[in-house]
Amino acid sequence: MAHITESRFRVRYAETDQMGMVYYANYFVWMEVGRSDFCRECGFSYRELEQEEKAFLTVAEATCRYTAPARYDEQVFVETEITRLNRRVVEFSYRIRSASAPLAEGRTVHVVIGPDGKPRSMPDRYFELLKAK
Amino acid sequence: MAHITESRFRVRYAETDQMGMVYYANYFVWMEVGRSDFCRECGFSYRELEQEEKAFLTVAEATCRYTAPARYDEQVFVETEITRLNRRVVEFSYRIRSASAPLAEGRTVHVVIGPDGKPRSMPDRYFELLKAK
Amino acid sequence: MAHITESRFRVRYAETDQMGMVYYANYFVWMEVGRSDFCRECGFSYRELEQEEKAFLTVAEATCRYTAPARYDEQVFVETEITRLNRRVVEFSYRIRSASAPLAEGRTVHVVIGPDGKPRSMPDRYFELLKAK
Amino acid sequence: MAHITESRFRVRYAETDQMGMVYYANYFVWMEVGRSDFCRECGFSYRELEQEEKAFLTVAEATCRYTAPARYDEQVFVETEITRLNRRVVEFSYRIRSASAPLAEGRTVHVVIGPDGKPRSMPDRYFELLKAK
Repeated sequence: MAHITESRFRVRYAETDQMGMVYYANYFVWMEVGRSDFCRECGFSYRELEQEEKAFLTVAEATCRYTAPARYDEQVFVETEITRLNRRVVEFSYRIRSASAPLAEGRTVHVVIGPDGKPRSMPDRYFELLKAK
Repeated sequence: MAHITESRFRVRYAETDQMGMVYYANYFVWMEVGRSDFCRECGFSYRELEQEEKAFLTVAEATCRYTAPARYDEQVFVETEITRLNRRVVEFSYRIRSASAPLAEGRTVHVVIGPDGKPRSMPDRYFELLKAK
Repeated sequence: MAHITESRFRVRYAETDQMGMVYYANYFVWMEVGRSDFCRECGFSYRELEQEEKAFLTVAEATCRYTAPARYDEQVFVETEITRLNRRVVEFSYRIRSASAPLAEGRTVHVVIGPDGKPRSMPDRYFELLKAK
Repeated sequence: MAHITESRFRVRYAETDQMGMVYYANYFVWMEVGRSDFCRECGFSYRELEQEEKAFLTVAEATCRYTAPARYDEQVFVETEITRLNRRVVEFSYRIRSASAPLAEGRTVHVVIGPDGKPRSMPDRYFELLKAK
């Protein structure tokens, strides 16, 4: 059974556009907030993975389906889970919703790379922490 | 045969992240630049569609596949074409590349809505202009 | 004695740049988070001011002095207070800090305008709520 | 007599907010576009300064005064000049305008630092190139 973490924050004015709703690219920023929180709940900061292991989760693919517009100042919830995991690839899936309605669903696929940009294996400790969830 | 427009600009420092490459969400902003230019080459500004017709091309779906990292100050080219068009739905596809290599491919699906957020038909004039390309 | 509100959030990866710290323009987004929270603690959402009164706090001036870099995933605190207030002009001042050190100080000056972009007076109810703090 | 460079681009939809104009923090991104172009006209890319010399122009202070709102799709011009220059500090000043009206004036003060975040001297070659303008 998958572990799901929940992130919560309010929509920033900066995130809206002249249509009066949140600009579509910002949902991908919210997904990043979701996976940062997911890592923290697994027992590490993604920051450590970069700094201590020089391992980077670069994005290979990103998708979002938008259901309803998000509005300034409204509370947003991002539910994040891992839907695929091996030593080279991690896939996160996201459900984004307001207090009253689903807003969007997304998915990001990440490849583990080193500072040279070449694929490498996820370091053991972090792989085990992600797998345990 | 599909019409393809090309947009060209340099990567902004603001668009990079601490991985030293362009943050993944910003490719979706570049796609927006691509479709704005596409509309202009069709003979209208997307701004007119909003202001004169109160028709909005809200995003229903957005996808990007990342091939190679984009770097600060490098010249980026976005090739934009329409890959689906009817009075209610427009799909744009994008090829994003640097001077030397492909960077990413993307796709956005748009639904025509009115100021009330409800689906409506694309106004004739704009539909014909998009179709002519 | 001035009322000061405190906002708290973590630095997003999207907010960093290739220097490995937060891009300077993003501190102004954080100030907006600060003044949104300030309004909420005064008993209203800035959203209501816009929607119910058609009054907008447009920015006339913005300044930031940067002391130390903010890093990804670190907790940031924004202290917000009103340092000038009359029916036409509101000035907010901000102290931005991490858990351990001051990061920046900023100031924004706002002018009250209507939907036509012309200056107007702050509606009574909101003026009193801001003044009471 | 000061050298002034001119940058030119169109307002992106992403840069607007629900007030229907450009969000105030984005003017600081435009200033960055201005100083990138300024460096390029001086004969180098700011990217080289970072990569070859490990010298970084961190921002110590940033200010903007807003005169008129910028709108989506409109052409924006940024005039950039150096208003203070020594081996440790560079100050850029900016005039931002549309085709028909001034939009804003800004100023950024930069301190030269090394990869350790400590102040250092601007490398000779780049100092001379900036001074020559």
